[in-house]
Amino acid sequence: MNIPQTSYPRVVIIGGGFGGVALAKKLAKQEMQVVLLDKHNYHTFQPLLYQVSTGGLEPDSIAYPIRKILSKYPNFYFRLANVETVDAAENTIHTDIGPLKYNYLVLATGSSTNFFGNKEIEANSMIMKTVPEALNLRSLILENFEEALLTDSIDRQDALMNFVIVGAGPTGVELAGALAEIKRGILPKDYPDLDTRRAQINIVQSGDMILKGMSSQASKKAEDYLEELGVNIWKNTRVTGYDGDLVTTNTDLNFNTATLIWAAGVKGETVKGIDAKDCITFSNRFKVNNFNKVEGYDTIFAIGDVACMTSEAYPHGHPMVAQVAIQQGKHLGENLVNFIEANKSMKPFTYKDKGTMATVGRNKAVVDMPKYKFQGMFAWFVWMFVHLFFLIGFRNRVVVFTNWVYNYIRFDREARLIIRPYKKQRAALLRELDNKPKDIEMS
Amino acid sequence: MNIPQTSYPRVVIIGGGFGGVALAKKLAKQEMQVVLLDKHNYHTFQPLLYQVSTGGLEPDSIAYPIRKILSKYPNFYFRLANVETVDAAENTIHTDIGPLKYNYLVLATGSSTNFFGNKEIEANSMIMKTVPEALNLRSLILENFEEALLTDSIDRQDALMNFVIVGAGPTGVELAGALAEIKRGILPKDYPDLDTRRAQINIVQSGDMILKGMSSQASKKAEDYLEELGVNIWKNTRVTGYDGDLVTTNTDLNFNTATLIWAAGVKGETVKGIDAKDCITFSNRFKVNNFNKVEGYDTIFAIGDVACMTSEAYPHGHPMVAQVAIQQGKHLGENLVNFIEANKSMKPFTYKDKGTMATVGRNKAVVDMPKYKFQGMFAWFVWMFVHLFFLIGFRNRVVVFTNWVYNYIRFDREARLIIRPYKKQRAALLRELDNKPKDIEMS
Repeated sequence: MNIPQTSYPRVVIIGGGFGGVALAKKLAKQEMQVVLLDKHNYHTFQPLLYQVSTGGLEPDSIAYPIRKILSKYPNFYFRLANVETVDAAENTIHTDIGPLKYNYLVLATGSSTNFFGNKEIEANSMIMKTVPEALNLRSLILENFEEALLTDSIDRQDALMNFVIVGAGPTGVELAGALAEIKRGILPKDYPDLDTRRAQINIVQSGDMILKGMSSQASKKAEDYLEELGVNIWKNTRVTGYDGDLVTTNTDLNFNTATLIWAAGVKGETVKGIDAKDCITFSNRFKVNNFNKVEGYDTIFAIGDVACMTSEAYPHGHPMVAQVAIQQGKHLGENLVNFIEANKSMKPFTYKDKGTMATVGRNKAVVDMPKYKFQGMFAWFVWMFVHLFFLIGFRNRVVVFTNWVYNYIRFDREARLIIRPYKKQRAALLRELDNKPKDIEMS
Repeated sequence: MNIPQTSYPRVVIIGGGFGGVALAKKLAKQEMQVVLLDKHNYHTFQPLLYQVSTGGLEPDSIAYPIRKILSKYPNFYFRLANVETVDAAENTIHTDIGPLKYNYLVLATGSSTNFFGNKEIEANSMIMKTVPEALNLRSLILENFEEALLTDSIDRQDALMNFVIVGAGPTGVELAGALAEIKRGILPKDYPDLDTRRAQINIVQSGDMILKGMSSQASKKAEDYLEELGVNIWKNTRVTGYDGDLVTTNTDLNFNTATLIWAAGVKGETVKGIDAKDCITFSNRFKVNNFNKVEGYDTIFAIGDVACMTSEAYPHGHPMVAQVAIQQGKHLGENLVNFIEANKSMKPFTYKDKGTMATVGRNKAVVDMPKYKFQGMFAWFVWMFVHLFFLIGFRNRVVVFTNWVYNYIRFDREARLIIRPYKKQRAALLRELDNKPKDIEMS
């Protein structure tokens, strides 16, 4: 990997998400060598990916070059790499660009979509965890409407204009709201020769409430908002299959649709080579102690989505959200500095829950703070302010803010561009892979 | 195609570039049915593509949805389609989404890269005529530097950091200037562990001046600017081959490079089915008369890059630039309206040359106007103002302006993101195509 051996201890961080970046910033100014590996050369602000999918924001405004975040630190190294396996006995990781020795290893690999073993759904549904995936969804939504114009079959038209979102967490709810606003504000103007009133937005949820994990007040209000926008909410319904045309559920309910968006769950993106038997919980996360140390290892840590730290308050681990990753990244940074440089003992991590929020549409958001809960226009402004605040990069903030102001005033979303057609890409890859859908990687 | 038959005459326009859009705007408010076909669902502002390739602008800010440009006209139809052939005897075009009858057909298909028959260069070089192509180049430039970090071979490092641009028209010159600014301002910060001083930017030109077609004053000044920025200019040199590693020329000069950017020429993007024998000139454009009517046809017109209208002032046709396309689009619009609605005779087209300009870098541009020629900072401001003015969409203008101000103040270009790695895509396509490089279409 061409990284010089120095007298400083080497900390290798895998993953440049919220946790990895927060940790790297803490460590890079210290007397240690920090190596960050990621398979992208940019940090992705995942909470706004759904706005990329729905044409409200350009992808480049929610991504930020990792090299730039850390360019002022001379002991910091970034490498664009896919990690293949960890050899803990040799303190070495193996990657597609060669091996690397470490003194301390931090797994900040985040999470990936959890299909709960359903290969058919995995092969046919859309997901939204990375920028290319969000762009694929944007292309597909637009390609669907272009195709709907061309067919005389009402059934096919309906399938192309029917969107089924599985999972009513923040991602599912926010996406449903955005699609409903597109249906209302943009489709009638863009497709006057298509009866876009027949477009349907469905959100399917296995439990009996949406935004599970938020207050019942927030959940109820979000449901009202979605209904106002014309979204169909199906609770207590579990999607069981999707062959690319028909969605089946555990009830009598079926959907004919060309687009299933799977936002029903995530799982830890674990790394091979770390003994899974003892330390991986049901959500596929590495079990860590209070100092984020992976159980059974002395020099390997895990933070954020891929870490499962249990406590009385969080018997199944912390929620898999950005705030936990950021706080664990900062905390582990302090612990490592104290431990490595001053040989001080580590302090246990405690999560400070600053609240949760979700937005459904213009002037429609729900906010749960530890002391206050509120909904509506003020909540919507708070949501926007918080997201702008956490977005990395001044230019990104200005561009996102400009888009939001424009979209708000004009009821518009101008980034509705099919830059790389999704159907064509998928067809080419399927040909190439000789119809082995489980291996598809669209990046 | 599901386009209703009405009592209005139907004008079909192929291509949503500068000419097609200008024409459609003129016609759509009249008593005629206007159908615009394009293979993208957006209009591309091509003059700024080089800033996308070099991370200065996000692609979405120079693209604009065609449906949105014309959404207020009830007789306007857009279809996302690839035109396959024209059957002039039947007044019908055939496309990948079915056939369509026309009363009048306007070819506004623009131009594509001209490799002058060199298949090897076509298979191995990068081009920059569409948004996906510009993004591929952006990815490749960044992938090169990431790869250069990993190798111990000085030769390979040099090849990865060596950029050869063929053609010193505005595109080549502007790209060379932008790469030189990246070398100076960004590489040392992003790649401190790489000796980026060794990066080379070469521009190769077969003639004895750069910016051919502009004044000798502008050409000389642009050359000075490029030299100030450290660009190597090779005049009177013709590139003869490139196998992916070695660029050969008609002189002793060779380059070892991983990146050849071909900006040496364009040719008309003609449409099959229109008899080529009589009406295609050496630059592959349809010969048209003073009213933009294609020679030998009564109801088929051509405008912009694909049209060749000769006159005393322009014995080989007009320059293939946006201004000609816009003026011909507007003019043909007026002619068609007069002719179809009032049966008035058409007026001949005359090109009003408003001038030419090119920018090399910050505060460095050259402007030739009919009466004044100037260079430097003021020219640079004029260049920016004119480009903002012609960019379609208020939001796009604000976002582009924001980026320019930011880039100017910070000496930065933040969109240096590898969203879709180019090398991986190319490898996959080559596998799929079983090494038939001439068929590669990366979109």
